[in-house]
Amino acid sequence: MALRPEALEKLLTALRTLPSVGPKMSERLAYHILKSSEEEVRALTQSVLEAYEKVRPCSDCGNWDESNPCRVCSDPERDPELLCVVENPQDLASMIRVRGFKGMFHVLGGALSPLDGVGPQDLRIDPLIKRLEQGTIREVVIALNPDMEGESTAQFLARQIQALETANGPIKVTRLAQGMPAGGELEYMDEVTLLRAFEGRRNLV
Amino acid sequence: MALRPEALEKLLTALRTLPSVGPKMSERLAYHILKSSEEEVRALTQSVLEAYEKVRPCSDCGNWDESNPCRVCSDPERDPELLCVVENPQDLASMIRVRGFKGMFHVLGGALSPLDGVGPQDLRIDPLIKRLEQGTIREVVIALNPDMEGESTAQFLARQIQALETANGPIKVTRLAQGMPAGGELEYMDEVTLLRAFEGRRNLV
Repeated sequence: MALRPEALEKLLTALRTLPSVGPKMSERLAYHILKSSEEEVRALTQSVLEAYEKVRPCSDCGNWDESNPCRVCSDPERDPELLCVVENPQDLASMIRVRGFKGMFHVLGGALSPLDGVGPQDLRIDPLIKRLEQGTIREVVIALNPDMEGESTAQFLARQIQALETANGPIKVTRLAQGMPAGGELEYMDEVTLLRAFEGRRNLV
Repeated sequence: MALRPEALEKLLTALRTLPSVGPKMSERLAYHILKSSEEEVRALTQSVLEAYEKVRPCSDCGNWDESNPCRVCSDPERDPELLCVVENPQDLASMIRVRGFKGMFHVLGGALSPLDGVGPQDLRIDPLIKRLEQGTIREVVIALNPDMEGESTAQFLARQIQALETANGPIKVTRLAQGMPAGGELEYMDEVTLLRAFEGRRNLV
């Protein structure tokens, strides 16, 4: 005799396909759903279907939006000569809150990771090169995570971009500074962070 | 300008109503859903709706099943004189795997917790007393979590059950033993566990 009813098993299986949802979490979610009101369950499934139907990747930057080009690419107040490369839309959302940055974005869709089988063809690198070849962008700020994958992806992109010949000359490639985070406590910083902070030290006066 | 499209905001809001899903987790789930195939998204929402429609609490034990009474209550091989009280269906699933136990179940739906506003009327205690008053059950095994809420709920239930007068005389109330878990290492056990293990020591020969 199967312990659980078939419809519940099916729901658990479907929930376990979601990221960070294991056996225990799928049970917690499933029983929460069973105990919810019909209105809440409809609201949940309809919001999933509606978002899936309406929200699409922007063909310019790769950000997800209901309009194409997306609201960030169509914002006339953003500087079309400055482009920030991020891994994913969540990182774009973080960068867009930085008031001092008013450039455009390009979402790569991840970082190079040979161990996980992620190569250049799996990322939005070709669309990035095509955007740069149009000649408007003068500086690319690489804002990938400061981990192994982010580092090697940044190096790979820098080489590709420096090799480009645009009508307006070479494109400047920069990256986010590495060092102590604001409010960070020195005694809790790892060695790599401290080394980067030391290497990147700046004149105070 | 809102940063995110409305349909995405709605999805994030709906996902955050789920247990253990905070802002970061809701984003991870939402972007996973957006990137899924249409087939996967339909499978997810349909499994939610189907489980919600088909799976209902058993009117006898409170377990969730497609049939009522549930498959556990209708199992003729289970001993109708022995009843195990658990907090929730997940705990029932754990107890049912114990081969030596072949009794019936009663799902309380939680434990008493005055701080969280959970009183006796919020649990399935009245249905439990009604079941016991029928006179078939001879022993109640209380299998609540060995934490503060579980302990006080066990005491509360024991008093209620001992006060019952059934046609077959008083009902025996027992609880799961407390002590060292199998495979546990003594040096990593907390004091309360060791005290309970000491108090519950048994003759070896």
